[in-house]
Parts: sequence; C-alpha cells; structure tokens
Amino acid sequence: MDAFVETLFETLCARKDADPSTSYVASLYKKGDNAMLKKVGEEATEVVLAAKDNDNEALVYEVADLMFHTMVVLASRNISPQAIINELKRREGVSGIFEKQSRKE
Amino acid sequence: MDAFVETLFETLCARKDADPSTSYVASLYKKGDNAMLKKVGEEATEVVLAAKDNDNEALVYEVADLMFHTMVVLASRNISPQAIINELKRREGVSGIFEKQSRKE
Amino acid sequence: MDAFVETLFETLCARKDADPSTSYVASLYKKGDNAMLKKVGEEATEVVLAAKDNDNEALVYEVADLMFHTMVVLASRNISPQAIINELKRREGVSGIFEKQSRKE
Amino acid sequence: MDAFVETLFETLCARKDADPSTSYVASLYKKGDNAMLKKVGEEATEVVLAAKDNDNEALVYEVADLMFHTMVVLASRNISPQAIINELKRREGVSGIFEKQSRKE
Repeated sequence: MDAFVETLFETLCARKDADPSTSYVASLYKKGDNAMLKKVGEEATEVVLAAKDNDNEALVYEVADLMFHTMVVLASRNISPQAIINELKRREGVSGIFEKQSRKE
Repeated sequence: MDAFVETLFETLCARKDADPSTSYVASLYKKGDNAMLKKVGEEATEVVLAAKDNDNEALVYEVADLMFHTMVVLASRNISPQAIINELKRREGVSGIFEKQSRKE
Repeated sequence: MDAFVETLFETLCARKDADPSTSYVASLYKKGDNAMLKKVGEEATEVVLAAKDNDNEALVYEVADLMFHTMVVLASRNISPQAIINELKRREGVSGIFEKQSRKE
Repeated sequence: MDAFVETLFETLCARKDADPSTSYVASLYKKGDNAMLKKVGEEATEVVLAAKDNDNEALVYEVADLMFHTMVVLASRNISPQAIINELKRREGVSGIFEKQSRKE
C-alpha cells in the first residue's frame, strides 16, 4: 500500500481517541455512522458536479474528499485500505482486468 | 503510489482504445460521462447501505466498486490517482492532519 | 392530496400482494429495502445529471423516477404522501415559507 | 395538482426575486445549480439513512426535504410539478401501472 495512504489510515484510526472538539475526524466518529455516511453521499454528488463542470481542479478536490471520508468509514470499522486493494486484485485474478463478463448483474 | 493502483490506472487509461463490446471499461467510456458518473452515485449509495447493514464483507466489495468507478472517471480525464494523494498530502501539510479549522464551510 | 398521486399510492400499497415475476414494484418489495433505496440513490444522481445537462425533458423523466421510487419506499412503510405534504405545511406554519432561520444546521 | 403543492411551487418561483440574505430559497438560486443539486444528493442520502434506521418520523422529514429541494430545481427551470404528475400518468397509460415490461433497461 502507498506509504502516505497507510499513514493516513493509521492517523484516522488513532483519531478515535481524540477530542471531538478539536478533531474533525473525532467529531465525525462521535456523531456516528449517519454523519460519516452522509459525507460519503455528499462528496459523491460533488464528484459528479465537478466532473460535469469539466473542472479538473475541483474534481481532484472532491475525489480527495470522497476518498478521505470513505477511509473514515473504513477506519471506524478497522478495515484497512489494503482490503480494498486486495478485493480489486482478486477481481483482476479472477477475470482478466475487470471486464464485463465477471461483473455482477 | 501503490504499484497495483498505478497498474490499474494505466490499464484503465489503455482501455480507451479497447473494444466496447468486450471491455466493460471501454463500454463505460463510450457511453460517456453520465454513464460513468451514474456508477459513482450508485456505488456511493451501496457503500452507505453496506455500512448501515454492518456487513463488512459487502462494505469492502462496494468501496472497491466505488474506488474502481471513481478511477474510471479520473482515467477518462487523464488524472492520475497520484493527484488525489498529492491533494490529501497538501491538506496535511497546510493544517496538521485534516482537522476542522482547515476545512471548507 | 392530488387524486392521481393518491391512486398511485394505493396502487403501490396493493402491489405488496402482487406477483414479483410480473410486477416491477412487487419485485422491489421482495428484494427488500436495499433494492428500493438503491433506486432512490440512483435516481437522485440521474436528476443531478439531467439538470447539469440542462435537459428539461430528461429532468422531468428522472424526477418522475425519483418521486416514484420514493413513493415505493413510503408505501413499503404505509406512509401516505399526505404525511409529506403535512410536514411541508407544518414548516410553512412555523416559519413563514421555508426560510433560512428555521432550518436545521 | 394538490393545492398546497401548487402554492408551494408558486412561492418557490416568486423567490427568484427575493433577497438572498433573508430567503433560503433565494440564496440557493443565487449560489446556482450546484448548490441546489448538492442538496438533492444530500437529501437522497438522508432518506436512505432514515429508512435504514426504520425511523419513520425521520423518513417523513427527509422525504419532505428531498421533495422540497427537488421542487426548487424544478422552479429554477419553470417546470411545474404538474409535469411530473403528467409523466407518471403517461407511464400508467402506456403500460398498465408502472410495470416491469415498460421500464428502461
């Protein structure tokens, strides 16, 4: 896994013990699943809007927000981003590179 | 950047020249932005549902789907995932680790 | 309540006893909450895409889809659309017409 | 159309000339499409969360929010809610009540 992503994940996990009044991530944990998941929905919509605006700078910003908040959800469940990479690798192994015939639906 | 993620990104970029009838990713590119972005919205909703179900296996699956389709959007614009990591690093540099005072709104 | 919306709601409620192999709505009920709610997320994204495309015809189509699937969720819980209208009326009564000072957040 | 929904729509249209500093709806119009559409995405996610919580009171609240912000989008384009009802009626006329065989995909 990318070293920075690994450090970020460890930092997010460590925030579980931080003060919600000074840590944004700790405040999300304290508010609970709905607060975290609402952010995932919001940021996905913002990714869509930035892409439709053909605004690549905004797109990078919003994808970073989406990735960040998705990692908060993973961290809240102690699921390492490595598990996501492993799942993507598994699909590649099963079916060539992620092609139609292997997809659900 | 993680070596697998880098290879995946290169593969997604290379799919721009693939046959849409045999490549799922090529078929998404051919259908255009709305088809790709609809998947981002769909998969974000599925991440929310899996998390609410406390189904960690489904959550890993759906986050992988969300990450995959977000990378398709990035690839369609030739934006490397490294740009996302750089944006997350920039925030850390500016403000300590991603804390409240540095966030928009 | 609008007579057609009322009839539609009653029809959706009646579909709970229909055959999932011939009724789309009955098949959604049978698949359960996640199938219904996934449609709400999907159709919301399609509303966003149609609006960004400034395609009013598509917007009407997608808002109809969003309203329809939201009503399926309400029907699955025996919540009449009148309850939604009552909630909107309540807000008007409390605060003038839906203005900023009365809103959460 | 339901008399209250019609009045609400007219009120939303009239807010185009209101002061954004005192009218929430006018402030949404002024911020533009992305602000309005972001709300549609957010509220759809909140509908999903309320439904997964089996919290009918929250569900009514969030569906009202979703309907309200969807109507703001329609009002911004001078599309009456009657157009949505007409589209739903059209589907009924074409195919029996909204059944599978008439649906896209």
